[in-house]
Amino acid sequence: MILVTNDDGIVSNGIKALIEVALKFDDVLVVAPDSPQSGQGHAITIEQPLRLRKVDIFEGVEAYECSGTPVDCVKLAKNVLRKNQPFTMCLSGINHGSNSALNIIYSGTMSAAMEASLEGINSIGFSLCNYDQDADFSASKVIIEKIIRAALENKFGDCKLLNVNIPSVPLNQIKGIKVCRQGQGQWVEEFVEAVDPRGEKYYWLTGKFTNFEDPIDESNDIHALAHNYVSIVPSHHDLTHYASIESFKYLEKI
Amino acid sequence: MILVTNDDGIVSNGIKALIEVALKFDDVLVVAPDSPQSGQGHAITIEQPLRLRKVDIFEGVEAYECSGTPVDCVKLAKNVLRKNQPFTMCLSGINHGSNSALNIIYSGTMSAAMEASLEGINSIGFSLCNYDQDADFSASKVIIEKIIRAALENKFGDCKLLNVNIPSVPLNQIKGIKVCRQGQGQWVEEFVEAVDPRGEKYYWLTGKFTNFEDPIDESNDIHALAHNYVSIVPSHHDLTHYASIESFKYLEKI
Repeated sequence: MILVTNDDGIVSNGIKALIEVALKFDDVLVVAPDSPQSGQGHAITIEQPLRLRKVDIFEGVEAYECSGTPVDCVKLAKNVLRKNQPFTMCLSGINHGSNSALNIIYSGTMSAAMEASLEGINSIGFSLCNYDQDADFSASKVIIEKIIRAALENKFGDCKLLNVNIPSVPLNQIKGIKVCRQGQGQWVEEFVEAVDPRGEKYYWLTGKFTNFEDPIDESNDIHALAHNYVSIVPSHHDLTHYASIESFKYLEKI
Repeated sequence: MILVTNDDGIVSNGIKALIEVALKFDDVLVVAPDSPQSGQGHAITIEQPLRLRKVDIFEGVEAYECSGTPVDCVKLAKNVLRKNQPFTMCLSGINHGSNSALNIIYSGTMSAAMEASLEGINSIGFSLCNYDQDADFSASKVIIEKIIRAALENKFGDCKLLNVNIPSVPLNQIKGIKVCRQGQGQWVEEFVEAVDPRGEKYYWLTGKFTNFEDPIDESNDIHALAHNYVSIVPSHHDLTHYASIESFKYLEKI
């Protein structure tokens, strides 16, 4: 049984494409948010109860929409629906838009995959670098099938989470696959300010990603995608900055 | 100017205690959520506009409540309120409850501090290992003052984010401070199932943290806290599992 989830919501085109690929390998259980949850990061729902509703929108596939976040979906799938029986894999996506570089920490798609990896499930998050709701997932489906097949035949080993991003070009323009590190960069934000009918100000978040990488450094996902390679970043949840443990030891002596 | 935020909300006792300490070092700007945001992780608000309201609840301190997540608070503070003028530091907390080990990825408190660190601001998240809303922050205040003073006198260097957890014991029982790595463990979840007045099922998330660490391994925050040490984990946002980049290179050949 493969668990499929996403953050764009259960009716998005991306999850439909991913389910079609997943069905080539195993039975599929879909548990996905009932509304868009982009940017939800690793949020879980504590202040509200959660709802699960069975839906019949993918032919022959057991599917549930959930009122919570992508991470809630994974927790409910494992603990309530499957009662801790194992999954072959967890697949999250296909996200409408890039989750390369820093975007992994804001991404509900990648956080859902990370949550499954914490449960010992081999997990892959897939994203197409195209925010259009009607994006063409045909090339993505070919690539994703190859990656799933190879990952199932080989071992994941110690690392149980892959962040896969696919450039938004036709299949014949994709140059290959690069296994690489998370690129460094930053969102430069602006807030669009407006006034509601009652005269109160409000703000919409918007921004532009700035790449901090040297353009000749080929070791990161930003470079791979810019050169029409699929990027794969082996990822995990240990946020320790190991190189700095020694340099902060002065704090033990205060 | 020191930025203070949290995830328990602007009226919690923890942020009040943190503001009192921060004022010993510099002017303070408070931007914190208008409602509890525990477990919000690195969520940002995309689907809704954001509100900022000036509040007068901390004497002589400029303070705003925000309708969004802890990360939204930091983004609004930097981009709207301070218009990119620098902060001396960002302090987040004091969280009501532990953010040690895996909890860092679910924590709004730590995600707010991480967001500030991404902007190049030296940032510290503080948590007291006590979930009680009326917890005693007196020992925490003494320790936090020492840590801020030392961090301001020394350099943060490459790592701009510290995850500080404080055991819930009186000051004279705290044995010292350990600079260490993020401990490994897992939440074992159960969902409490109930039925609403309309006959529809709903679920409340609950769970218990399971420690995966060898009890004699002193290098992690779980061990430090269990032995009444304050834990400090230098942290960052690079989720790459570097050790696995080579072992996944087979995916470049499919």
